[in-house]
Amino acid sequence: MPVDDIRASVRDGDLPAVSRRLDGLPAHEVADLLARLDESSAGLVFRMLGKDEALAAFEDLDPVSQHGLLRGMRDGAVGELVERMEPDDRARMLGEVPASVANRVLAGLSPGEREMTASLLGYPARSAGRSMSPELVSLHSDDTVARALDRVRRDGASAETVYTLPIVDEGRCYAGVVTLRRLVLGDPGATVGELADPSAPWVLATDPAEDAAHLMRETDVLALPVLDAEHRLLGLITIDDAVDVLEQAQTEDTARQAGAAPWAGHYMAQRVWPLARSRVVWLLLLLVAATLTVNVLQFFEDTLETVTALALFVPLLIGTGGNAGAQAATASVRAVAVGEVRPSDVLAVAWREARVGIALGAMLAVAALGIGSALVGMRIAVVVAISLVAICAWAATIGATMPLVAKRLGIDPAVVSAPAVTTLVDATGLIIYFVVARAVLGI
Amino acid sequence: MPVDDIRASVRDGDLPAVSRRLDGLPAHEVADLLARLDESSAGLVFRMLGKDEALAAFEDLDPVSQHGLLRGMRDGAVGELVERMEPDDRARMLGEVPASVANRVLAGLSPGEREMTASLLGYPARSAGRSMSPELVSLHSDDTVARALDRVRRDGASAETVYTLPIVDEGRCYAGVVTLRRLVLGDPGATVGELADPSAPWVLATDPAEDAAHLMRETDVLALPVLDAEHRLLGLITIDDAVDVLEQAQTEDTARQAGAAPWAGHYMAQRVWPLARSRVVWLLLLLVAATLTVNVLQFFEDTLETVTALALFVPLLIGTGGNAGAQAATASVRAVAVGEVRPSDVLAVAWREARVGIALGAMLAVAALGIGSALVGMRIAVVVAISLVAICAWAATIGATMPLVAKRLGIDPAVVSAPAVTTLVDATGLIIYFVVARAVLGI
Repeated sequence: MPVDDIRASVRDGDLPAVSRRLDGLPAHEVADLLARLDESSAGLVFRMLGKDEALAAFEDLDPVSQHGLLRGMRDGAVGELVERMEPDDRARMLGEVPASVANRVLAGLSPGEREMTASLLGYPARSAGRSMSPELVSLHSDDTVARALDRVRRDGASAETVYTLPIVDEGRCYAGVVTLRRLVLGDPGATVGELADPSAPWVLATDPAEDAAHLMRETDVLALPVLDAEHRLLGLITIDDAVDVLEQAQTEDTARQAGAAPWAGHYMAQRVWPLARSRVVWLLLLLVAATLTVNVLQFFEDTLETVTALALFVPLLIGTGGNAGAQAATASVRAVAVGEVRPSDVLAVAWREARVGIALGAMLAVAALGIGSALVGMRIAVVVAISLVAICAWAATIGATMPLVAKRLGIDPAVVSAPAVTTLVDATGLIIYFVVARAVLGI
Repeated sequence: MPVDDIRASVRDGDLPAVSRRLDGLPAHEVADLLARLDESSAGLVFRMLGKDEALAAFEDLDPVSQHGLLRGMRDGAVGELVERMEPDDRARMLGEVPASVANRVLAGLSPGEREMTASLLGYPARSAGRSMSPELVSLHSDDTVARALDRVRRDGASAETVYTLPIVDEGRCYAGVVTLRRLVLGDPGATVGELADPSAPWVLATDPAEDAAHLMRETDVLALPVLDAEHRLLGLITIDDAVDVLEQAQTEDTARQAGAAPWAGHYMAQRVWPLARSRVVWLLLLLVAATLTVNVLQFFEDTLETVTALALFVPLLIGTGGNAGAQAATASVRAVAVGEVRPSDVLAVAWREARVGIALGAMLAVAALGIGSALVGMRIAVVVAISLVAICAWAATIGATMPLVAKRLGIDPAVVSAPAVTTLVDATGLIIYFVVARAVLGI
């Protein structure tokens, strides 16, 4: 691993070796290295990079590490670096660092770049407007292909992409897109309007960036026009930024599904306290919710004292119920995230997952009958087996439908995390278990 | 929702309404509709689509639904449809349907398309070779820009992309790429070699498609050359296919993290038995593993009978330990998946997560002291509080390091699913609890 070698050389203070090893390293590997080093070493390595390498690596960095590097740099160096960033990368970074830092950086920019960045920062965090690039080449419907290509040659150098060319009318109102492919392959005498796709997808600047990214994935476009409420063209979201938005959304969903608040930045760059803070709220909530299980057990304490063997299967039963619920919840959250399931499907989902749960419970019950009768005898084993069927059916149904109900209520379905389902199923599963036990054992 | 309206119209047999509503519906929404309908209704709707709409929707469908549609079609119609698919989409579909179906479809293709598809199918499932498109425009280093653009105009119509143009030497050996942007903006007299990027990323056909997709995400390229072992150019992976590969990998990781086998296809198109089958193996394994908790409780049965109040906190403690472990495991699996953490980081991760776990446990212990002393008195509450700190530290450490150990052993880290960590922590957490109880209560 070149990155590990470089870290070792930095630790040893062997700067010539660092410089030799940095040479030719791709930008995304330099960024990974910078995120893993402590702040002062990262600053040292960063200063050893060429101007273009430094810019490329910096744009690839997560906001936490970017902020760390900025802290160690002189104002002049900060200005020079940030001035050369793409406007959308710059806005994304400034949206995440403390406001005082963002203002100082903004003040150091040239007027044109400052205006472009400030207008991007005017859109809500995580909106399409924040992720778009305002630097594009736009065409008119009645341009000929030859003229359009001339315009691409003239204005293309500063545009983020020249493959998707939005078409605007006199009032800068959006009127479709034409691709560079169509222009290059098209008849030079044709007009842009004849080659355009007026029904290409677009979004409003205030739409969530994640929705824009999903739309791009579904429609296989390389860039998506971003419009204001009057349908004037503001910018383009390019596919590389959309991929990053999807990746970030997925990382956050994953964290939320495990009952942790999502964080910005490289995992190895996290400190202990921020990590603990991102997880403690859910753990505390779940701990408080878990006192329900204490109440349930207290309620059934007589039963438990009459047949103490029942206590032996409590972890097994609630563990299995939790697992079955988590499986269903995860599948459901994912299906909602990729748009395969909608809240209106809730009854169909519940009916199917209930049957899946019964099927799963039945298979597990057979195993439990074997294990249980060997360990504690047939009567308790029958109680455990029947409870398994009921708990699995209940857990799968609840686990799969809760994300849909959350979505309908406007709550992020990923928040209905596996731990939340597990904790709910713990308490209700115990009730099922003791009710079954009383019925079967006649106590 | 137009899709729901169409489903209702199909149910009512109101075909004119179906046809009216299908008109102008984007391909990805038609695909979503087809995946949600039962097989015969889907076939009915599919036959109502125009040729191009049908092709676009079919290419967008998941393999399970594609297979369902093929089953309902005459051989002639199948041949006509599949002949017009992109070679990579066709190979992806044929790789997932039963071999007998794949062979029948292949036999119906024209010789050229059949050869192209068969060669893609020769690469391993999920390899870069399976996802590439062999239809591309390649250039030579000494071509002038003008000549290169002529070639793009001549051969570009059948290529999947013309934005990334690989350069080959006489023996078809790969020698870099040039982008259409550079050609269009470049000096017409320059040669392709002068504008080329010889260090652009590429992959071997046998490399995993997921690695190729990650490389594309990190390097922000729109297409990636795929080479054979002798570095001859075979094809290009385009970004839209890479995004689908990432999405599919993520869906599978998500399923595995919840202890379920991943499946192909739309969630709403799954039947009860395949769903139950995808989940039962893990549930059974975990059930068998959970009998460890029964053994642990049997071992400490004396302690449990002496202080029956200890039983009340078993679900709460193992639930919390499971949650803390699942949080750490999920963060770690994700960090490995996006390349932020490597197996060599295992000690750094363990040390950090142990401290995170102690911090979390300490905060929870304060809450537990309050809750416990109110419900059952101070002595048991102290046992619960101390156990929480130890269990959280242990769970976070194990949860975060197990995925790294799995990766080092060549096992998919996502397989070290939250349920697996939870079940392991259940049994060991109980041991911690009873050891603490015996020490504190002096029994």
